[in-house]
Amino acid sequence: MTIFNQITLIGMGLIGSSLARAIIENKVTDRLVGCDINDDHCQTARELKLADHITSDPVKAVQGADLIILATPVGAYADLGKLLCPEMKEGAILTDVGSVKASVVKALSPHMRSDCHLIPGHPVAGTEQSGPEAGFASLFEGRWCILTPPEGTNPDKVKQLEKFWQALGSKVEHMTPDHHDMVLAITSHLPHLIAYNIVGTARHLEEVTKSEVIKYSAGGFRDFTRIAASDPTMWRDVFLNNKKAVLEMLGRFSEDLTALQRSIRYDEGDKLFELFDRTRRIRQQIIDAGQEEDVADFGRHQDD
Amino acid sequence: MTIFNQITLIGMGLIGSSLARAIIENKVTDRLVGCDINDDHCQTARELKLADHITSDPVKAVQGADLIILATPVGAYADLGKLLCPEMKEGAILTDVGSVKASVVKALSPHMRSDCHLIPGHPVAGTEQSGPEAGFASLFEGRWCILTPPEGTNPDKVKQLEKFWQALGSKVEHMTPDHHDMVLAITSHLPHLIAYNIVGTARHLEEVTKSEVIKYSAGGFRDFTRIAASDPTMWRDVFLNNKKAVLEMLGRFSEDLTALQRSIRYDEGDKLFELFDRTRRIRQQIIDAGQEEDVADFGRHQDD
Repeated sequence: MTIFNQITLIGMGLIGSSLARAIIENKVTDRLVGCDINDDHCQTARELKLADHITSDPVKAVQGADLIILATPVGAYADLGKLLCPEMKEGAILTDVGSVKASVVKALSPHMRSDCHLIPGHPVAGTEQSGPEAGFASLFEGRWCILTPPEGTNPDKVKQLEKFWQALGSKVEHMTPDHHDMVLAITSHLPHLIAYNIVGTARHLEEVTKSEVIKYSAGGFRDFTRIAASDPTMWRDVFLNNKKAVLEMLGRFSEDLTALQRSIRYDEGDKLFELFDRTRRIRQQIIDAGQEEDVADFGRHQDD
Repeated sequence: MTIFNQITLIGMGLIGSSLARAIIENKVTDRLVGCDINDDHCQTARELKLADHITSDPVKAVQGADLIILATPVGAYADLGKLLCPEMKEGAILTDVGSVKASVVKALSPHMRSDCHLIPGHPVAGTEQSGPEAGFASLFEGRWCILTPPEGTNPDKVKQLEKFWQALGSKVEHMTPDHHDMVLAITSHLPHLIAYNIVGTARHLEEVTKSEVIKYSAGGFRDFTRIAASDPTMWRDVFLNNKKAVLEMLGRFSEDLTALQRSIRYDEGDKLFELFDRTRRIRQQIIDAGQEEDVADFGRHQDD
């Protein structure tokens, strides 16, 4: 179902290249233009036939596009906005896939033209891998895409962007940028921070060798290494651009952890049991909501 | 390959019932006796034919056994040792599968007879599920089993126990109890504590609703809910019985997290990038060591 005449993707990493595949598979545009400032990514994207035209020049890439999707680290948005907004076609939509939203509005708004439409977005989907080879068309199926249209945005344009995400298999929700950043701070940003931190702590231990950390990682540690293997540039930008909400969530996490530490120190077995018993149930709710597969141990033993 | 004439399993939960299945499949004993003080577990174990004889009486269960394996929460060991040691056959081995080792030695040693052999053990394997239905025979394949035989233990008995674990597909390593407890504190106990804690923190947020936590959990949070769904009794006992090493690791983790928090607050992007880049590599090393499957996102999109 064609929704746009031309879509331009800026950034052909995991998310950009997954979008390219999903856009082609679902035939949502007549013409797809891909862009990446990394020449190797362009070359790979060409070999994988991820778009009708692939260029390393973002200015050329946006020309004629009805929908422009930024899929770069969010730290690049301000420069991109300045560069690309003057080139946009009248009536075009500028959206993105960044994991933070308030700072995106702040970075792009000053450059937006009144005859174009800024509708920031965030598909809550991904893997720990990076680059154009890592993408796949079904990444967005069954996942939520959060849109944060500024007040007064043309509702037809919002509806058109919603249709786009639905065509890729996503469910769409609206939020204010601030609420988005608060929700994602707990459901995504803090988990990444904690995972990065524990893997970092494990590397520093002199009493425990690195080979022991690896050998016995099946005791739980290996789970954390997955998200601690995520793209470092993307995540640096997320933390620098959602500082307030991340520090707030981190403060709560640390308070709770201190209380837990105290329960261990003073042998408060009842308090430990009570917490561990309550947390058990939330996984089943996530499975029931279709946001996780119903298999033990992430299906690691599925072939048994 | 028969290694023992009779094996008795005390506890028929996830680990005990997986052992039962693996023991039967690999024919390592002529006779297998299973025991669980929970009558429902006994009934289920009988229906699943998990042993030649299943009883809820541990005293009867150990009679005639050459190998007795404790697979209950470690908090029950002291009482079990007192009850079972007088009933053990001369020359029998008493082992266990507990996630802590120094406190196991302390709980069981006072009851051990000089004509029997205490060889504590810990197979580093499991899932977040519990009970006799959750077990499966291949749980121990390719995983490490750590034995902590006290100094002076009969080497033939140690070798016999090693053969047992190898027959189930495990690799065997020896450690002192204290070193084991330090290594597992970082590779298993701290990861569980952190996971329990973040799931607990998420439940308390009033600005973010519980349904939002569930809807957007694919951003990273859902990974943590897996190990936070582990057995509450088992994990209460682990933390109470490995207090010193857990508090030590937790102290280091919290220091590192405070440094990371400071880097976010003061926009130290270089420091964030450096950490995130280093942690990325450790996952590949775990995959290379055969302790994790080489698939993106835990294989959640394997059917794509």
